[in-house]
Amino acid sequence: MRTLSKLTQGLIGQPMLEILTTVTSMENAGQKVFRFEVGDSDFDAHPDIVAATQSALAAGHTRYVNSLGIEPLRQSIRKYIGQGWGFTPDLEQIAVMPSNSIIDFVIRCVADPGDEVLFSDPGFPSYYAATHYLGVRDVRVPVHESNRFQMNPADLEARISDKTRLIIINSPQNPTGSVMTRDECAQIAAIAKKHDLWLLSDEMYSENLYDGEIHHSPSAFDQCRERTIILHGFSKGFSMSGWRLGYAVGPADLIAKMGLMFQTVYTCVPPFIQYAGITALEADRTLMKARMEKYRQLRDIMVGALNDIPGVSCPTPKGAIYTFPNIRGTGLSSQAFAKTVLEKAGVATVPGTCFGPGGEGYVRLCYLREETIIHEACERMKQALR
Amino acid sequence: MRTLSKLTQGLIGQPMLEILTTVTSMENAGQKVFRFEVGDSDFDAHPDIVAATQSALAAGHTRYVNSLGIEPLRQSIRKYIGQGWGFTPDLEQIAVMPSNSIIDFVIRCVADPGDEVLFSDPGFPSYYAATHYLGVRDVRVPVHESNRFQMNPADLEARISDKTRLIIINSPQNPTGSVMTRDECAQIAAIAKKHDLWLLSDEMYSENLYDGEIHHSPSAFDQCRERTIILHGFSKGFSMSGWRLGYAVGPADLIAKMGLMFQTVYTCVPPFIQYAGITALEADRTLMKARMEKYRQLRDIMVGALNDIPGVSCPTPKGAIYTFPNIRGTGLSSQAFAKTVLEKAGVATVPGTCFGPGGEGYVRLCYLREETIIHEACERMKQALR
Repeated sequence: MRTLSKLTQGLIGQPMLEILTTVTSMENAGQKVFRFEVGDSDFDAHPDIVAATQSALAAGHTRYVNSLGIEPLRQSIRKYIGQGWGFTPDLEQIAVMPSNSIIDFVIRCVADPGDEVLFSDPGFPSYYAATHYLGVRDVRVPVHESNRFQMNPADLEARISDKTRLIIINSPQNPTGSVMTRDECAQIAAIAKKHDLWLLSDEMYSENLYDGEIHHSPSAFDQCRERTIILHGFSKGFSMSGWRLGYAVGPADLIAKMGLMFQTVYTCVPPFIQYAGITALEADRTLMKARMEKYRQLRDIMVGALNDIPGVSCPTPKGAIYTFPNIRGTGLSSQAFAKTVLEKAGVATVPGTCFGPGGEGYVRLCYLREETIIHEACERMKQALR
Repeated sequence: MRTLSKLTQGLIGQPMLEILTTVTSMENAGQKVFRFEVGDSDFDAHPDIVAATQSALAAGHTRYVNSLGIEPLRQSIRKYIGQGWGFTPDLEQIAVMPSNSIIDFVIRCVADPGDEVLFSDPGFPSYYAATHYLGVRDVRVPVHESNRFQMNPADLEARISDKTRLIIINSPQNPTGSVMTRDECAQIAAIAKKHDLWLLSDEMYSENLYDGEIHHSPSAFDQCRERTIILHGFSKGFSMSGWRLGYAVGPADLIAKMGLMFQTVYTCVPPFIQYAGITALEADRTLMKARMEKYRQLRDIMVGALNDIPGVSCPTPKGAIYTFPNIRGTGLSSQAFAKTVLEKAGVATVPGTCFGPGGEGYVRLCYLREETIIHEACERMKQALR
């Protein structure tokens, strides 16, 4: 019989991409839209990264390769983790694959339908999208502005049941920009160990840290040999969103299973794309530092301009690439705020509720835009909300 | 609790890639290996395709795009199908994604665990790998050399149950090179319609046809609007294996579900890769025809040389990029034959049993290699088998 599977009932679109569709049709109708909804930089990838991709193409790196990734890139990742994370993983602990697929693959490799996965509310929508279509139960841990949007360990532990398989954490966090301390990492790692759970640590934004913040990871406590899986990638730290290049560092047995899954579904990441990753990781770090200084300036400009809008209160995020202003003082819901500023000011934002019910009262804006654009958009919002 | 999911028990490696690992270690040990196991061409993608990828990178096509694919590529696919398939699909019927993921996504969108999917034995191992880890039952339809490795409609129909959701066919076929006639397509399309089943038509090798053969597709009967999904891609026809670029043409509601799944797992195919696809499809067809003439010559050389080995009998395949010689006359099993020629002659082949139990008595060799390599390898096999 020709029907759709049960799984298809659980498939949902990513809210950011749905907004993208609306915005694109506004733009096609000739309207000027100030675009802060997409978590991508207006600044291109470094020319060396583009050139590395082009050179790899010219050199004929255009055939099937090992599903876990080419060895030179896995060696670069090994070295990069060794320098920044305080331990050097084995090659067998590293798999090269797009970061979003790591979320899907980890959940599918550790949880059966009906099992439970814990993550924060608000939190990155892909965690929810993946659990939802897989029939895995999402158990959300509320996080609050009053606690820097960090999980309270007691809140987390209270939600662990005999069905729990996995905790997902994310620092620096999307959408709030919150950054975990070493102590917070230690507490979560201890809870995962106590209850013998897998721990997926989404560290996609580890390059996007400001004000002298240092990146901390729960992998410090097991070196990704027992339970911790680091999710990382090149989209945010190196402005390489369109390359779709990421990697997982985790226990070798789990990485092997994820590799088999990736082999079945995708064969491998295009090799010429993997060479771009080597260049990114091996690049002179001063280049990235200069870019982060620029990003910090833009963050400060947007935080200042948002706080100048009556009813809006924006804390200064320590990491990631987003502001997450509290808009409760405007009297509008997140949805109504986003709709108002899009329709009246031509400013695209993401309602906080796209990140979970706990995002009510907030909206997300990505600040990696030209300074003048940020100023004009905030001024337009201010006018529209009068 | 920290366990692996049930699904992980069903994950298997693709046999060709396992052989690749063995061969790589032989090569690393300094042994010369004649490589016929991988279904890839020794001839590079056309320079225009490489240049198009490089230009798209230079032009900044390096950001997130629509999960279903960029519109210019979907328009090119629309036109390409319109010219070769006798109908022009709507844009909503087209999704750009890697071809292997289409197998996985179609099965997941139409079948629940315990449901049944029908495909040929021998047949492409990815169908089996995907059904196996998804807990979907594979029901194999035996095909025989005596019937050009084509399914007997009565054999197919006898295996349909109330659990059947999907038939997968593949013409030109991997591993046998067999090509379906229009009548054979019509018969299978009629059976799918009679039992109201989905029909996945893997047409990956439609560009790889010889001796005046014309490509036929069951999509002729429903224009992919009811039940037929065409799976296609650029790896084989355009020697673009490392680009990981493919597309599905199918009923709009199913394509939309597959698009949501792809969005969750992968976001999108890198846009600069999609631009390469446009160049491939819009290219002067005489270039591809010249290449196919070269491929035909190589096929004939390998078929001749294989038939010169005592105990080996090789029919001339009409399509795809493989020979599938019958090796029963050597008195060896497929596995033993492959082991013998690898160890004694340094020739890598794929045992027919990697394509299902029905492949016993055969091995697969990809003939897109230099002429001298084919001659030398066949001579070495002849000596080794004495």
